[in-house]
Amino acid sequence: MMMTEPKAKQAKRGGAPVCYISRVESFSACHRLHSIHLSDEENKRIFGKCNNPNGHGHNYKVEVTLRGSVDPKTGMVINLVDLKQYMKKAIMDTMDHKHLDLDVPYFKHVVSFPSNHPRP
Amino acid sequence: MMMTEPKAKQAKRGGAPVCYISRVESFSACHRLHSIHLSDEENKRIFGKCNNPNGHGHNYKVEVTLRGSVDPKTGMVINLVDLKQYMKKAIMDTMDHKHLDLDVPYFKHVVSFPSNHPRP
Amino acid sequence: MMMTEPKAKQAKRGGAPVCYISRVESFSACHRLHSIHLSDEENKRIFGKCNNPNGHGHNYKVEVTLRGSVDPKTGMVINLVDLKQYMKKAIMDTMDHKHLDLDVPYFKHVVSFPSNHPRP
Amino acid sequence: MMMTEPKAKQAKRGGAPVCYISRVESFSACHRLHSIHLSDEENKRIFGKCNNPNGHGHNYKVEVTLRGSVDPKTGMVINLVDLKQYMKKAIMDTMDHKHLDLDVPYFKHVVSFPSNHPRP
Amino acid sequence: MMMTEPKAKQAKRGGAPVCYISRVESFSACHRLHSIHLSDEENKRIFGKCNNPNGHGHNYKVEVTLRGSVDPKTGMVINLVDLKQYMKKAIMDTMDHKHLDLDVPYFKHVVSFPSNHPRP
Amino acid sequence: MMMTEPKAKQAKRGGAPVCYISRVESFSACHRLHSIHLSDEENKRIFGKCNNPNGHGHNYKVEVTLRGSVDPKTGMVINLVDLKQYMKKAIMDTMDHKHLDLDVPYFKHVVSFPSNHPRP
Repeated sequence: MMMTEPKAKQAKRGGAPVCYISRVESFSACHRLHSIHLSDEENKRIFGKCNNPNGHGHNYKVEVTLRGSVDPKTGMVINLVDLKQYMKKAIMDTMDHKHLDLDVPYFKHVVSFPSNHPRP
Repeated sequence: MMMTEPKAKQAKRGGAPVCYISRVESFSACHRLHSIHLSDEENKRIFGKCNNPNGHGHNYKVEVTLRGSVDPKTGMVINLVDLKQYMKKAIMDTMDHKHLDLDVPYFKHVVSFPSNHPRP
Repeated sequence: MMMTEPKAKQAKRGGAPVCYISRVESFSACHRLHSIHLSDEENKRIFGKCNNPNGHGHNYKVEVTLRGSVDPKTGMVINLVDLKQYMKKAIMDTMDHKHLDLDVPYFKHVVSFPSNHPRP
Repeated sequence: MMMTEPKAKQAKRGGAPVCYISRVESFSACHRLHSIHLSDEENKRIFGKCNNPNGHGHNYKVEVTLRGSVDPKTGMVINLVDLKQYMKKAIMDTMDHKHLDLDVPYFKHVVSFPSNHPRP
Repeated sequence: MMMTEPKAKQAKRGGAPVCYISRVESFSACHRLHSIHLSDEENKRIFGKCNNPNGHGHNYKVEVTLRGSVDPKTGMVINLVDLKQYMKKAIMDTMDHKHLDLDVPYFKHVVSFPSNHPRP
Repeated sequence: MMMTEPKAKQAKRGGAPVCYISRVESFSACHRLHSIHLSDEENKRIFGKCNNPNGHGHNYKVEVTLRGSVDPKTGMVINLVDLKQYMKKAIMDTMDHKHLDLDVPYFKHVVSFPSNHPRP
């Protein structure tokens, strides 16, 4: 998905037209909401069924949004083939068909709640 | 849906990481577009088939978006169970399977057009 | 949407290839589930919130499916422009932005539950 | 979703009109594709990334379809409130936010592939 | 998507349980509706804007459905990795990012209307 | 889709409540990614299968978003019937069922990549 800058906004700002481009990737993973900073009772009360000891899973959707100037030769902000490759390396190879808490080092001491996922 | 703040933006701003979280709820209701500030002819001309005297209906989608700091213990901005409860009380109990103009006091003198719905 | 017949099935049956073609139309309407063959108490117990006296509404989706031989000259079972026109006349003009129970004669004595809608 | 019988088909068959009604439910679960009838090497070769030892997960959609006569008083084949209750008991309480292989006895010796799920 | 056979139906039929499995693939292509068996005027009248001389395009969705017995060892009717490979060869390599009428020999003398696409 | 301004934000800003309203339109078109500023080899390397000489196509979605004050009489920012008409003229009549590069003068010397589409 792309969001283009209105002409009036570009004129005010000056420079080349700017565009936002988004790309969505989907992956399948499992996890368990469980914080090492809380007791078992607190974990159960706060996370409820998401605290099930054997875990549960989802199909996740990740939308990456980039902001950049439009290349006058190609008309592109970024080549989607390149963006797909970056997302494959950063997202798919790390988390697809994995157990987030057990297979992804980042979540070893971090609750694998979406607002807690690694940020760029 | 959650939107996380890039690290660079957090560093610039200082403080804990901030996250936007959205939750969608759906309800079924009926209504009629008809303004008490307009004549019957004006109502018919402006609202067209949406002015049908016996009304019509929709499945509505409401997306509520919250902005907040990520709790370091739970990794959450808000517990989704709580958010669901607030939305049930504010949205579902009031408008689901109702006639907006006849069953919801707020719309007694207000056209039940989406841009006119109660704001938080 | 179209569903084509496998070659083996056509060979067994003989004749020209057969194809199923579906077209979806959406409309917005309101209604109330209330049967004239039941008491008010029974209506309330059976239909619950769908029995709300002032009604409620939905966006409806209707999918019409046709079965026919593929015309060897045009490759079509039916011209989609014609099918759209038939559906406009039979579905949209009758029920879109209407109150099914009050505006559509068919539902005067018939509960406007989907399984009760007029059949071709 | 409902699929109604054309009048001509009903006339040919005789009796009350028949209707198919479908209801979709979603749940979140994790699992691992691994057969006790195969060696570890065969499991890895056949199931690939779905054989990840720590499992992975999905949001599952289950669509239940019923066939029945339309009740002349209510216009319904089955009360959707009842169908929801049956699906809650048979599907949601058993599999939602669970590990299919570890939490659901049925899958103890059965590969948790969709075509292998319990049948009615 | 998978559709499993009810136990009662299997018992009546005898043999191993049978399952339908569907897989969807998407591709992007362009085409022009134009029949060599019709005059230019007839083509324009029948196909309307789809007869635009320079063509137009779509994102196509193809759903392939297989019927087969469930393998007692793997629980699968077919390995989805294999099905993906067959669909890549038969559908994606032939039609994705192509002009159906100019790049696909099958459509040289056949109107590229969906009901006219090659059948298995 | 509409996005309403929270009351606190309106109070801070002063004046009438402001609302964002979005409307989506879909069209079918074909195109070829090919830049007149690049050699044939560069075009092939950068645009890959999107550089196919005979073109390819898509179903496009365009979302137009407006910002405006809510009219106290009608409750609307803009009449959706008018917005539909503007989008028909600006988008549908120009690009639906067309070849973007050959039928739309704007793209004669401009790569028809979404970030390069005409801006308001």
